[in-house]
Amino acid sequence: MDDRIKEHAEIIADWSTEMEKDDNVLVMAHPQAEELVIALYEEIGERGAHPTTLFSSSEVSRAYLKNFNGEFKTPEHILSLFENSDVVISIKSDVNEKAMNDVPGQLLAEYSKVRKPISDMVQDKKTCLTAFPTNAAAQLADMSLRSYQDFVWNAVLRDWQEVHDKQEILKKKMDEAEEVYITGKETELTMSIKGNLGENSDGKFNLPSGEVFTAPIPDSVEGEILFDKPLIYMGREINNVRLRFEKGEVVKHSADTNEQLLSQILQADEGANKLGELGIGTNRGIKIFTRNMLFDEKMGDTIHLALGKAIKRTIGENGAGNDSAIHMDIIKDMSQGRLEMDGETVMENGKFIWEM
Amino acid sequence: MDDRIKEHAEIIADWSTEMEKDDNVLVMAHPQAEELVIALYEEIGERGAHPTTLFSSSEVSRAYLKNFNGEFKTPEHILSLFENSDVVISIKSDVNEKAMNDVPGQLLAEYSKVRKPISDMVQDKKTCLTAFPTNAAAQLADMSLRSYQDFVWNAVLRDWQEVHDKQEILKKKMDEAEEVYITGKETELTMSIKGNLGENSDGKFNLPSGEVFTAPIPDSVEGEILFDKPLIYMGREINNVRLRFEKGEVVKHSADTNEQLLSQILQADEGANKLGELGIGTNRGIKIFTRNMLFDEKMGDTIHLALGKAIKRTIGENGAGNDSAIHMDIIKDMSQGRLEMDGETVMENGKFIWEM
Repeated sequence: MDDRIKEHAEIIADWSTEMEKDDNVLVMAHPQAEELVIALYEEIGERGAHPTTLFSSSEVSRAYLKNFNGEFKTPEHILSLFENSDVVISIKSDVNEKAMNDVPGQLLAEYSKVRKPISDMVQDKKTCLTAFPTNAAAQLADMSLRSYQDFVWNAVLRDWQEVHDKQEILKKKMDEAEEVYITGKETELTMSIKGNLGENSDGKFNLPSGEVFTAPIPDSVEGEILFDKPLIYMGREINNVRLRFEKGEVVKHSADTNEQLLSQILQADEGANKLGELGIGTNRGIKIFTRNMLFDEKMGDTIHLALGKAIKRTIGENGAGNDSAIHMDIIKDMSQGRLEMDGETVMENGKFIWEM
Repeated sequence: MDDRIKEHAEIIADWSTEMEKDDNVLVMAHPQAEELVIALYEEIGERGAHPTTLFSSSEVSRAYLKNFNGEFKTPEHILSLFENSDVVISIKSDVNEKAMNDVPGQLLAEYSKVRKPISDMVQDKKTCLTAFPTNAAAQLADMSLRSYQDFVWNAVLRDWQEVHDKQEILKKKMDEAEEVYITGKETELTMSIKGNLGENSDGKFNLPSGEVFTAPIPDSVEGEILFDKPLIYMGREINNVRLRFEKGEVVKHSADTNEQLLSQILQADEGANKLGELGIGTNRGIKIFTRNMLFDEKMGDTIHLALGKAIKRTIGENGAGNDSAIHMDIIKDMSQGRLEMDGETVMENGKFIWEM
C-alpha cells in the first residue's frame, strides 16, 4: 500500500473526525477507494470503534433514478443509519464522473429534496468529506492518474494545525464584520454577514481544506456577479454563471452552457435561489482547476458563493442563514478583483491582507 | 449487460423478495457484483421502492478485525439500518474467498456473537441470499469464469414454482414425521423433529435453492455421523468432520484438517454444539461441488446438518429449535446411505422416494 494512503487514513481518524473508542463510524465510498477504506478500517479497529460502509456509485444511482416510478421519500432505513452514526466519512471516488449526465435535472432536484433530512443530520456529526484519486477524476482534471495522485495527496497531507493558525486571522475578521463588498469583472455585490460566524476550514469537515467561510444574511444580498469558473453539478458543467440579486433573491440568471439546468436548480425549493455561503479559498497548494469542487473552492485566489443551505456552524446566535435542500458552490476568480469587509480590503487581485 | 443478469434481478425482486412500492431495500454486495446491483436498482426503481447498498468486502473486514483493539458490540447504526429495512438482499461476490484466512477463529466467533441480533432480524425480513459469479468463486470451484457463470445462472434461472410444487411432497412428510434415522458410511444418527415444520426452500430466501429442511429437537440427537464433503468456514476448509452426539450435544468431534478451528466454533456459545437444521438437497441441476455452501447444500444426493441456530420458520408451535450466534452447515454425501422418517425410507442411495 502507498504510504500516503495510510497517512491519509490517519489524518481522517485523528485530525478530521477525532475518532474515539466505541464510535459508530459510517463510511461512504465507491469501491475504487477500497485501499483507503482498508487503511481506514485499520485505524478504526485500532481505536476500538465500529465501522460500516455504504457503496456509493453514480452508475448505480442512475439506474435507480432513470427507472423510478413512484414518489420519493426519505427512506427510514438510511435515515436511522445516519442518526445512529457518530462519525460520517465520505470518500469521493466514482468510476465515471459523468454517469449521472442523462438523469433529468428536475428528478435530481426532487431526489435531493427528500434527502435533506439526511444531509442536515451529517452537519451534527464528526464528519469528513475527502477524495481518493481515481482515473475518472484524473481524466476530468486533464491529468494522468500518477500526476493526479500527487496532486491529491499534496493537497491532503499537510500540517493542518499550521493552516488553522494562519486562517484564524480571516475567521476573526468575518466574526466581527457586518458588510461585505465584492467587485471584479462584471461584478458588484454587497451583502450583510452581521451576527454570523466565520468558519476556519482546516481539514476537519473537508479534506483537503483551506478556506474560511460564513453565511450571508439571506435577504441582504444585492447586486450582480459573474462566476468565471465552471460550476459542476452532478457531472454537468455550467459555464459563466451570471446572477443578479435583489433583496437576497436571484431575480435574473444566465449561463453560457446548461442554462436550463441552472434554472431548474434555482427552482428546487424556496431557499434554492438565495445564498447560503460566502467562502474564501486560501490553499496556495492547489494551483490547478480540476473540476472537483472539494479542491477547486480551496484555490488561493478565488472566492465562492453557494446557493441554498447555509452551514449550521456559521449561523450566529444573532445572525441568520438560508435553508434549502441544495448547497451548490460556484467559484469566482479573484486574481482581478477586491473583497472588502466593513470597508477594509482583505483580498485584492489575488493577494490576502497578510500578503499585501 | 448479460441478459441473465437482468433476469437474475427480476427473480430476486418478483419471486424471492416480492418487492413492493415503498419498501426500504437493503442490498449487501462486493462491488464486483456492480452489474447485478445496477440491474437490481432498475427493478427497485420501477417498483417505487427505496434502496441502499452496503459494501461487503472480506479484505476490508479483515483489516478491521486484525487491528481491533476494544470490545466488540452490536453497533446501533448497523442494527437500526436493518431494523428499518423491509427487504434485505445479500449478494456473495467477494474478490478473494481466502481473505479472512489469517484472522483467528476465536476473534471471528466473538465477532459473530455480537452480530447475532442483526442476523436474527434478517430472518423476519423479505430476504434473499444470492451470488454473483466472480473469478474468486470460479477459482475456488476449479473453473474458468465463463464456465462458472454458466454454472451459477443455470442454477439460479429456473422455474421456481415448479421446484416448489415438487418439493412440497417432502415438506409435508417433514411436517408430519416425528423420528428421523440416518445411516451411511460411518454414520448412524437419530433425532426427533416432532412438532417442527418442513421448509420448502424454493428460491425465496436462498437463490439458487432446491432443498427442504427442518429443525431437529435440540436435545434429541443421538449417534454419530461422518460429513464427507468439506465444511468451508470463513474461507477455511475443514475436511471429514466426524461428530458424536449424546442428548443433542456434540460430545466428541474430529476433522482431518483445521480440527482446532472446528473446536473453537463448537465452543462459540451454548448452542454452538447442538444442531439447528436438517436439510435435504433436491437440486439435480447442481452436479458439481464448488466449495460454496449456497450451491453445495442444494446438491440432489446430499443432506446437510447445521450446528447452531435453527431457522425460526421451521420451529413449530409445539416444536423446539436451537439458538446460537452461529449457523454452520456441513454436508454429507448420501449416494451411499439412507434417510428414514418414522420408519419410511424417503431417500436411499441418492434417490428420492418419488424416484425409486
